[in-house]
Amino acid sequence: MRQPYPFSAIVGQDEMKLAFLIAAVDPSIGGILAFGDRGTGKSTAVRALAALLPKIKAVEGCPYNCEPSSTAGLCRACGDEGGKKPKATLKPAPVVDLPLGATEDRVVGALNLERALAHGEKSFQPGLLAQANRGFLYIDECNLLEDHLVDLLLDVAASGINVVEREGLSVRHPARFVLIGSGNPEEGELRPQLLDRFGLAVEVRTPQDVPSRIEVVKRRDAYDRDPDAFLEQWAPAEKKLCARIVAARAHLASVATPDAIVESATRLCLKLGSDGLRGELTLIRAARALASLDKKHEIHEQQLKRIAPMALSHRLRRNPLDETGSSARVQRAVEEVLG
Amino acid sequence: MRQPYPFSAIVGQDEMKLAFLIAAVDPSIGGILAFGDRGTGKSTAVRALAALLPKIKAVEGCPYNCEPSSTAGLCRACGDEGGKKPKATLKPAPVVDLPLGATEDRVVGALNLERALAHGEKSFQPGLLAQANRGFLYIDECNLLEDHLVDLLLDVAASGINVVEREGLSVRHPARFVLIGSGNPEEGELRPQLLDRFGLAVEVRTPQDVPSRIEVVKRRDAYDRDPDAFLEQWAPAEKKLCARIVAARAHLASVATPDAIVESATRLCLKLGSDGLRGELTLIRAARALASLDKKHEIHEQQLKRIAPMALSHRLRRNPLDETGSSARVQRAVEEVLG
Amino acid sequence: MRQPYPFSAIVGQDEMKLAFLIAAVDPSIGGILAFGDRGTGKSTAVRALAALLPKIKAVEGCPYNCEPSSTAGLCRACGDEGGKKPKATLKPAPVVDLPLGATEDRVVGALNLERALAHGEKSFQPGLLAQANRGFLYIDECNLLEDHLVDLLLDVAASGINVVEREGLSVRHPARFVLIGSGNPEEGELRPQLLDRFGLAVEVRTPQDVPSRIEVVKRRDAYDRDPDAFLEQWAPAEKKLCARIVAARAHLASVATPDAIVESATRLCLKLGSDGLRGELTLIRAARALASLDKKHEIHEQQLKRIAPMALSHRLRRNPLDETGSSARVQRAVEEVLG
Amino acid sequence: MRQPYPFSAIVGQDEMKLAFLIAAVDPSIGGILAFGDRGTGKSTAVRALAALLPKIKAVEGCPYNCEPSSTAGLCRACGDEGGKKPKATLKPAPVVDLPLGATEDRVVGALNLERALAHGEKSFQPGLLAQANRGFLYIDECNLLEDHLVDLLLDVAASGINVVEREGLSVRHPARFVLIGSGNPEEGELRPQLLDRFGLAVEVRTPQDVPSRIEVVKRRDAYDRDPDAFLEQWAPAEKKLCARIVAARAHLASVATPDAIVESATRLCLKLGSDGLRGELTLIRAARALASLDKKHEIHEQQLKRIAPMALSHRLRRNPLDETGSSARVQRAVEEVLG
Amino acid sequence: MRQPYPFSAIVGQDEMKLAFLIAAVDPSIGGILAFGDRGTGKSTAVRALAALLPKIKAVEGCPYNCEPSSTAGLCRACGDEGGKKPKATLKPAPVVDLPLGATEDRVVGALNLERALAHGEKSFQPGLLAQANRGFLYIDECNLLEDHLVDLLLDVAASGINVVEREGLSVRHPARFVLIGSGNPEEGELRPQLLDRFGLAVEVRTPQDVPSRIEVVKRRDAYDRDPDAFLEQWAPAEKKLCARIVAARAHLASVATPDAIVESATRLCLKLGSDGLRGELTLIRAARALASLDKKHEIHEQQLKRIAPMALSHRLRRNPLDETGSSARVQRAVEEVLG
Amino acid sequence: MRQPYPFSAIVGQDEMKLAFLIAAVDPSIGGILAFGDRGTGKSTAVRALAALLPKIKAVEGCPYNCEPSSTAGLCRACGDEGGKKPKATLKPAPVVDLPLGATEDRVVGALNLERALAHGEKSFQPGLLAQANRGFLYIDECNLLEDHLVDLLLDVAASGINVVEREGLSVRHPARFVLIGSGNPEEGELRPQLLDRFGLAVEVRTPQDVPSRIEVVKRRDAYDRDPDAFLEQWAPAEKKLCARIVAARAHLASVATPDAIVESATRLCLKLGSDGLRGELTLIRAARALASLDKKHEIHEQQLKRIAPMALSHRLRRNPLDETGSSARVQRAVEEVLG
Repeated sequence: MRQPYPFSAIVGQDEMKLAFLIAAVDPSIGGILAFGDRGTGKSTAVRALAALLPKIKAVEGCPYNCEPSSTAGLCRACGDEGGKKPKATLKPAPVVDLPLGATEDRVVGALNLERALAHGEKSFQPGLLAQANRGFLYIDECNLLEDHLVDLLLDVAASGINVVEREGLSVRHPARFVLIGSGNPEEGELRPQLLDRFGLAVEVRTPQDVPSRIEVVKRRDAYDRDPDAFLEQWAPAEKKLCARIVAARAHLASVATPDAIVESATRLCLKLGSDGLRGELTLIRAARALASLDKKHEIHEQQLKRIAPMALSHRLRRNPLDETGSSARVQRAVEEVLG
Repeated sequence: MRQPYPFSAIVGQDEMKLAFLIAAVDPSIGGILAFGDRGTGKSTAVRALAALLPKIKAVEGCPYNCEPSSTAGLCRACGDEGGKKPKATLKPAPVVDLPLGATEDRVVGALNLERALAHGEKSFQPGLLAQANRGFLYIDECNLLEDHLVDLLLDVAASGINVVEREGLSVRHPARFVLIGSGNPEEGELRPQLLDRFGLAVEVRTPQDVPSRIEVVKRRDAYDRDPDAFLEQWAPAEKKLCARIVAARAHLASVATPDAIVESATRLCLKLGSDGLRGELTLIRAARALASLDKKHEIHEQQLKRIAPMALSHRLRRNPLDETGSSARVQRAVEEVLG
Repeated sequence: MRQPYPFSAIVGQDEMKLAFLIAAVDPSIGGILAFGDRGTGKSTAVRALAALLPKIKAVEGCPYNCEPSSTAGLCRACGDEGGKKPKATLKPAPVVDLPLGATEDRVVGALNLERALAHGEKSFQPGLLAQANRGFLYIDECNLLEDHLVDLLLDVAASGINVVEREGLSVRHPARFVLIGSGNPEEGELRPQLLDRFGLAVEVRTPQDVPSRIEVVKRRDAYDRDPDAFLEQWAPAEKKLCARIVAARAHLASVATPDAIVESATRLCLKLGSDGLRGELTLIRAARALASLDKKHEIHEQQLKRIAPMALSHRLRRNPLDETGSSARVQRAVEEVLG
Repeated sequence: MRQPYPFSAIVGQDEMKLAFLIAAVDPSIGGILAFGDRGTGKSTAVRALAALLPKIKAVEGCPYNCEPSSTAGLCRACGDEGGKKPKATLKPAPVVDLPLGATEDRVVGALNLERALAHGEKSFQPGLLAQANRGFLYIDECNLLEDHLVDLLLDVAASGINVVEREGLSVRHPARFVLIGSGNPEEGELRPQLLDRFGLAVEVRTPQDVPSRIEVVKRRDAYDRDPDAFLEQWAPAEKKLCARIVAARAHLASVATPDAIVESATRLCLKLGSDGLRGELTLIRAARALASLDKKHEIHEQQLKRIAPMALSHRLRRNPLDETGSSARVQRAVEEVLG
Repeated sequence: MRQPYPFSAIVGQDEMKLAFLIAAVDPSIGGILAFGDRGTGKSTAVRALAALLPKIKAVEGCPYNCEPSSTAGLCRACGDEGGKKPKATLKPAPVVDLPLGATEDRVVGALNLERALAHGEKSFQPGLLAQANRGFLYIDECNLLEDHLVDLLLDVAASGINVVEREGLSVRHPARFVLIGSGNPEEGELRPQLLDRFGLAVEVRTPQDVPSRIEVVKRRDAYDRDPDAFLEQWAPAEKKLCARIVAARAHLASVATPDAIVESATRLCLKLGSDGLRGELTLIRAARALASLDKKHEIHEQQLKRIAPMALSHRLRRNPLDETGSSARVQRAVEEVLG
Repeated sequence: MRQPYPFSAIVGQDEMKLAFLIAAVDPSIGGILAFGDRGTGKSTAVRALAALLPKIKAVEGCPYNCEPSSTAGLCRACGDEGGKKPKATLKPAPVVDLPLGATEDRVVGALNLERALAHGEKSFQPGLLAQANRGFLYIDECNLLEDHLVDLLLDVAASGINVVEREGLSVRHPARFVLIGSGNPEEGELRPQLLDRFGLAVEVRTPQDVPSRIEVVKRRDAYDRDPDAFLEQWAPAEKKLCARIVAARAHLASVATPDAIVESATRLCLKLGSDGLRGELTLIRAARALASLDKKHEIHEQQLKRIAPMALSHRLRRNPLDETGSSARVQRAVEEVLG
């Protein structure tokens, strides 16, 4: 209801902020897992990011926020318009919360009971996955969700399509969104299978130095006491950051991927022994988004190095003989492979 | 049905009474956890506090007790009045009990079955969270509730908004209330994650000295035998206390927060190693409310010291090498940091 | 269907009979827990007590047995009569059994489905708690009930009000009754929290001497073979006991409570280390009822001594170093404090 | 569908047969527990007993088989006839099987859904407990039923009244029947609490001598091959036994109970340390029924001795120092007390 | 849909085939348990047997396949025809599969919802047990079914009557069928109680010699490639076997049972210590069916010897001191008793 | 929605690709289990295979994709056309995903609620098994499905018929499909019983050499960036492979099976000690499909050798003394038996 806290005013938390910016540039990166202590501003950051992004153009009244100029990826209703161009509207990128206790039918969508009872016809009532199309789906404490639900959400996030087969309904609709899950490693871990399905993973910690903490408290207090003044003060920074994202999106398709970069990514993953090929693919895609944010024409080793920890550390197998933390192991491998 | 026991007539229990007064001045403080033995008058105190507070002005017939003069934070119905000023009424601040066995649909609200069956239309039936807006929600033995329900309640209490996504409904309504949970540490503990979400925590004990206990029994007996006479006897004390709360609310916005106070709060939390930044934020907010009750123009160390145990002791990690109780550890840190 | 066994004809079991008489005089004493072997006549005694008591005057047709002359504590229907005096009727004090397998909706009341289906209107169907108003609720083997249900029943018994928040209903109605629970300590114990909520607790044992057992068997056999003759034989004893209860009720409000008695009760509880203040409060209230039964003008130490074991022994903490039974510990403390 | 095997043709199994005859003479004896190996003819015996008994006179069309000449113990419908004598009919004593998987609503009765849907009125559909009124309820492998259901059945069997409080219904109806439970001690035991509620308990074993087994197999084979011829062959024996039961029922009320017999029963129970007084009461009642079958004018020690094992052995506490079986312990006590 | 594999073409598996033939001759033998490895053709054999048997004459349209010429054992509908002879039809003996996941209501039958909704009348929808009347009920992996369902099926198979007490329905209908359960002893065992209720038990193994296995594979391949040619090739063998069954059924009633055979059966069971008398009864009944198949006029020791392992080995108690397999123990006892 | 990745462009994974081709040639081979790490392209390969296959001719509008020219194996609707030839249409072979959380009623089909409510008639709503007829059913992580569901799916896949007995429905319809299950052995194993029911099993691994991994990443990147160009580049290879499958299907029936091959297959299975005969049958059937793909006129040892590991290694019992992996054990046995 009131305006969210500005993204630019977040103190520290550089890893999380970078991961969010990358997803804003290339949403196909897969979900982001932000793990760490509660009270470190993860949900604040998600709301802040959504407020920062440019508005999206969508078909008016479409429950899936269909992009009017696109011809593919439209929902059944928008695709049925028979050549007529659907009416467009501008709206903020959706940020959908998966509230604790939301029932599965509200998440994936379900039979529209109202119409079933009133008209005896079986129609589909879109759920939160529909609402999140072209935006963000935020799950606080995703490690408390049941595995099969997390899996389902990651499936949808990966394919961009929600397949519903229940209660005699058989529906497919577009559901492209960035899934952001927060989690606390002390409260039960995610299965390695699920971890691997998140594109990027970042650790979020409470700052341990006095000046940063004072700064956080003072900014928060200022925002709580007079939100309008605070937002005005940060408006220029927000504007600049938004422009950077817009530019990076436009530039993305033209960023080249040198063969040497692919080889380096592959060697890095082999070195670290990560299963499957999601490691390489994510690393390159995220590095490309970063290169675009950095206004480069091709991916450089510099981007690989910067991205490697957030793309790979959650994909390592535990090595009982090597007690080094997983970020440090990624770092060491980066040094060995990339020098 | 009969008038509650007067707040001023409660014998002892100074910590609990102070925490309640602070929440009465600044409800955004977060929930209050009152833990300790049963039979120590916790539920009596909650009812007493509500009876003490000034009545609230609310839109007549609004199920959410909307504040008529406000323009933001109105429910959908009240916000739709199209410029017309809604009709106001005066009513006591609501105190809602979460009875054992209340079903989740009654807590968060649910589909209005009556209307669905009669008119085939899907409307929302507000629940206990709606009823508690601008008042108190009291949960006896909150450690016996399921974690996800406590979490949900704390979420709503923190955000002031109840998000309902179930049975094909998608509703948001204002739900600003002070959550007061009582609990008995002997019957299973709350998870640290949940503890951290309570703003303040106070321990309530049976008095161990003979005169206090006799006083409690005699006052209670007098109240039980002739409530009207007893209430009349305590009316002046109640009136005075109510006036103090009203004044403190009005004064709150103008209480200053010296930088040195923010730094002290931060150093204290760092010293104690509390996770996240909720410790600092609550400490300062509660100290400001106390300063206002104490008619100060800015927060002094004196308020920090008084508040620290109730704002921080439930946020400490267990230290297996330090068997000192958590209140004592806070006390010691207060002495080291504030002298 | 046939007349219950006469209360006066019960052989022995003096503790249980006294506890029942006290509750008959002052129902606000809280629940009574009668624990001990099965087959010792607990349910016989409850039925016997109800048959013994004077009939109650109640509003005709009121599902809550409202007292017609009272102005407070009426149910919504009776309170709505707009000044007109409702029609009164005489009926026996209700004794409600909580049968095994009773569903929670029948206990607390629920949506009246019949009316909902027929007229599409949502009305409340009162449950067993309504039926028990102004009488007794008997739960056989209450230790086999789920804790939350026992807790709910004790809550209602303590407050005299049944709060129903379910299925879109929000109802409060009077439910003042004496809860009598029987239990067998060999089959799983009640939690200390629940124990503390019972006002009085008595142990019931099979008599171990031959003459008593013969007497029980012979009386029971006589009653089974010719109930009418047996009841006639015991009618005078029953009449006398009923008169004693009626007198004690009338006299109760005028029994004084000397300060020294409050102090003794407090010292006794402190000595025994019982948590909370329910011990003192129950002890004094029950002693007052006994004083009234004994036709005294104030509580004497004699009543305190007589009541202490049944009011306190279930409130002691287990002391692993003191293997004395709890009744004996209470007895010892009584001797030390009262001499 | 075909005629059951004749009771008189059962080979051996004297204990079980005697227990059944006693229940046939005095159904208020409580349930009978027949435990032992499967395949020993327990269910055959129950069906045989029911076929043997004289037909009962019942109100025509009454779902509870009300006795037309009685004035008390009638169901609501039969009791409402306003003085008119209801029409009587003769029918066999009902034997109701509790089939595996019977739902609780069918056992205790439930809302009549048909009428609720068709006429919108809430009426009661009687269940198996109604059907069993004035007959037998047979539960095969009652140790596999849930405890609470066995408890409920024993409650009803003991009180003769079925109290239904569910789905908004509140019904009481007569349900006097002999509950016969079979059980296999190898498949989990009944709780002592439940054991105590059975009136009599008998052990049933496969005969271990060749001639008996051959006799069983030959009789069974004869019955299976030509039921009519077999039944005709046993008709005289059946007639004689039926006459003996009818005579014993008529004679029962006039059998005297000498004080010495009550004392002996009591001393026996005290010796054995059985909890509660159900031991004595059952022992005397069953001995009286046996005396009546034996055409005696009062109970003799002989009947006590004969009945003691089946009335008491399931009520003993386990004595870890005495490994003698419980029947032998009863036998020894009988010898010590009665000589 | 296509014709089943011919019974006569099954390679080896003599025990299983014999057990099936015996049940075909005397279906009252009780269920057959075929345990052993998967993939050994158990379900193929069941289907083959059904295809082999002569068609049955049944009342047209009767859901229970009632035998038109019989007067007893008819279902309610067929029995109600008031003297008129119902119209007969010829159909194959039913083979009903209990598919994994079949709901209990489909097994035993349930309320006919269609008619209940359309006409507001409560009628019974027969289930799989009705469908299986006069045929076979096949349960693959019956050890994976819940015990209570297996028990229920064995109850019905034994009594030939399905008693339904659920959803306000009270129905009994004929359900005589041969229950054939397959099971894998490696996947959890059946309780001894259940084992005892199966009439015969046979072990099925994969042949371990090369020629047999080649023969199985070649026949199967031939059948799969050209079923019609294969069936034609085996038609004469099938016809001959069918005639043998028909003759044995007709002859069965006249096979005598010498007393010496009953005694031998009894001695054998006593020797083996099998509980109950089901061992003897099944042994004699199955031996009689085999004698009839063998065209004998009375049972000879030869039939007892042949049948003993399949009738008794699943009824032995485990003997921890005798590690011999149960079949070998039966064999040894046969030699000792019968020479 | 967009065209799947081309089958021919998959790098490596020869075992999986061969198994898929065999199933494409002879779908009666039974299910295929592809186990191994996530992220190795299993689901990509399934989709790729379906896109590669020739379209199928099906009855227009038939929910089971009935083959119009066939006369057997038609669904009830198509079979009822009374001689008229149903209208045919061409459509791609269906690939049905079993999404996580699909309800059982959607899998097997269920009562059509819409028609039941609107017209009061009970009709069948076909489920995913119907949809998959003549195509593929893909289950990701089938080891996370409940055993009974996997079993049911394998039953249907094996028999080609879906038997539905639920909610008063009794339906059989054709459901011939290739079941492809992926699984991760680290997340709980399938029961040996289930393993045996899969026709072929292949292990899928991430390539461990740098050039392959680079190739995978580059191809995937090319496909993601410009799908149309990529598909065009691979079209010739796809066309050729499709033609090979079509030819192999036509040729299959004429591939001979020399007796020596059957004997070799049998000896191999005996050597490996695989239970049941599914090993031999699958080995021969798959070798025949491979021979057909290889354009041979009969099965040669070469095909047996190639197929043995995928047909047998999942059917071995664990041998605790032989730690060799199961593929190696198959290989060794192949060498010993076939030389």
